[in-house]
Amino acid sequence: MKVIDTELTPCVFRYKIIIEYLGSGFCGWQRQESCISVQQVLEESIERLFKEKVLLIAAGRTDAGVHAYGQVAHFDLTKEIDVYKAVRSINYFVRPHKVAVLACQLVDNSFHARFSATQRQYVYKILCRPSELIIENGLKLWVREPLSVESMQQAANYLIGKHDFSSFRATSCQAKSPIKTLSNIEIIKQGDNINIYVSAPSFLHHMVRNIVGSLLLVGRGIWPAQKIKEVLEQKNRIYAGPTAPAKGLYFLAVKYPK
Amino acid sequence: MKVIDTELTPCVFRYKIIIEYLGSGFCGWQRQESCISVQQVLEESIERLFKEKVLLIAAGRTDAGVHAYGQVAHFDLTKEIDVYKAVRSINYFVRPHKVAVLACQLVDNSFHARFSATQRQYVYKILCRPSELIIENGLKLWVREPLSVESMQQAANYLIGKHDFSSFRATSCQAKSPIKTLSNIEIIKQGDNINIYVSAPSFLHHMVRNIVGSLLLVGRGIWPAQKIKEVLEQKNRIYAGPTAPAKGLYFLAVKYPK
Repeated sequence: MKVIDTELTPCVFRYKIIIEYLGSGFCGWQRQESCISVQQVLEESIERLFKEKVLLIAAGRTDAGVHAYGQVAHFDLTKEIDVYKAVRSINYFVRPHKVAVLACQLVDNSFHARFSATQRQYVYKILCRPSELIIENGLKLWVREPLSVESMQQAANYLIGKHDFSSFRATSCQAKSPIKTLSNIEIIKQGDNINIYVSAPSFLHHMVRNIVGSLLLVGRGIWPAQKIKEVLEQKNRIYAGPTAPAKGLYFLAVKYPK
Repeated sequence: MKVIDTELTPCVFRYKIIIEYLGSGFCGWQRQESCISVQQVLEESIERLFKEKVLLIAAGRTDAGVHAYGQVAHFDLTKEIDVYKAVRSINYFVRPHKVAVLACQLVDNSFHARFSATQRQYVYKILCRPSELIIENGLKLWVREPLSVESMQQAANYLIGKHDFSSFRATSCQAKSPIKTLSNIEIIKQGDNINIYVSAPSFLHHMVRNIVGSLLLVGRGIWPAQKIKEVLEQKNRIYAGPTAPAKGLYFLAVKYPK
């Protein structure tokens, strides 16, 4: 007979999940009264499955329309679960919503999806050609005019490092400080596809989309690459380009300490 | 004043177009009485635009649900047109159908989209993971079980070259001979994505999907790789695997002599 040592059994089991979702089906990650969020759909599925109230904390609260290939979140349960069965069952209960859990694992109680994260990576997908988006409609931004990837990368390089990103910060941003460290921006062109990879320990609200909006002005030749440096130094949102549409943005991955 | 030499002006101008479409919106390339085909939608747009009756001949008559990134077709007009304006105008008239012309060029009257083609390339896209397809739903085949790409490639290699492909031919196939020369099959795995690239001068009806259906049985370990050689030698459709679903198949590109 198995002896359960209650002294060693924690009263809470913490689970980390990796999540994919199609942004267009949701008003964003965070729960809201009037519309369907990723958080609500997943919390309700987990609650229905395990008959416990849960709070799902995500690494990044994506906006309405933003997609995710690798959002990370955690939740607590009072019981230990079969994680493989959990993935299948949660995915069954979330239907027909366009979200799926890709993996689930039991983690240490000190793990926090948001506060333990050391690096977050996004990709912004652009299809640049004269003809409309057909197959990937809703999954990329369509840009009709040719874009100079070289100028865009040159402009992006001014943003890498620790800066005051007030110029690329939404007015609604609740962060205490506008100072962030942009680890990398890499722009990769393959045929008509241009992918902008952006990574940093953390971001301001709308920061990636505001950066992309400015880089598009550079790519189209409306701004010289150096203009991005001036915009950054202005520390004022009115100097940067427009916010790029949500449909091109994907939350790719989150890094945690080993 | 410009003198028009009627002796040198051909009475017919032939145009080659490259076309992208989402297969799920159509009953396939070819015109049918009871449903919407890519051919019908494009012919009607071109006719509305140029006020002339046209017949659109495609390089490959794709089935219902099969997508295309690079279908090629030709049509004739009695007048010379601005090809750049034509692309924009045809794409305006085809809305809201999920098809777009990517390029249009005036070609020699001897060019024939179907009979001049020397090579046709398809790709079959698979997402192989435990969780459902979310972001690329409808754009790939979802396979829950792990697949051995090595075994699949080994099996595919038996098919490369000139063979009697009766085992991989649809009963509805109208080709005179079952003998075809498969130029190449390359299976590329990137993360959870498995892409099967298949190229040949020409294919039998359902040939790519029937080959993929059999390769999937090998990938799942149900068949050893060598079984494909036996199936090929049987020259009978009943020995091959099931026809893989249309949603994973893309008509990629067509080659013509320079």
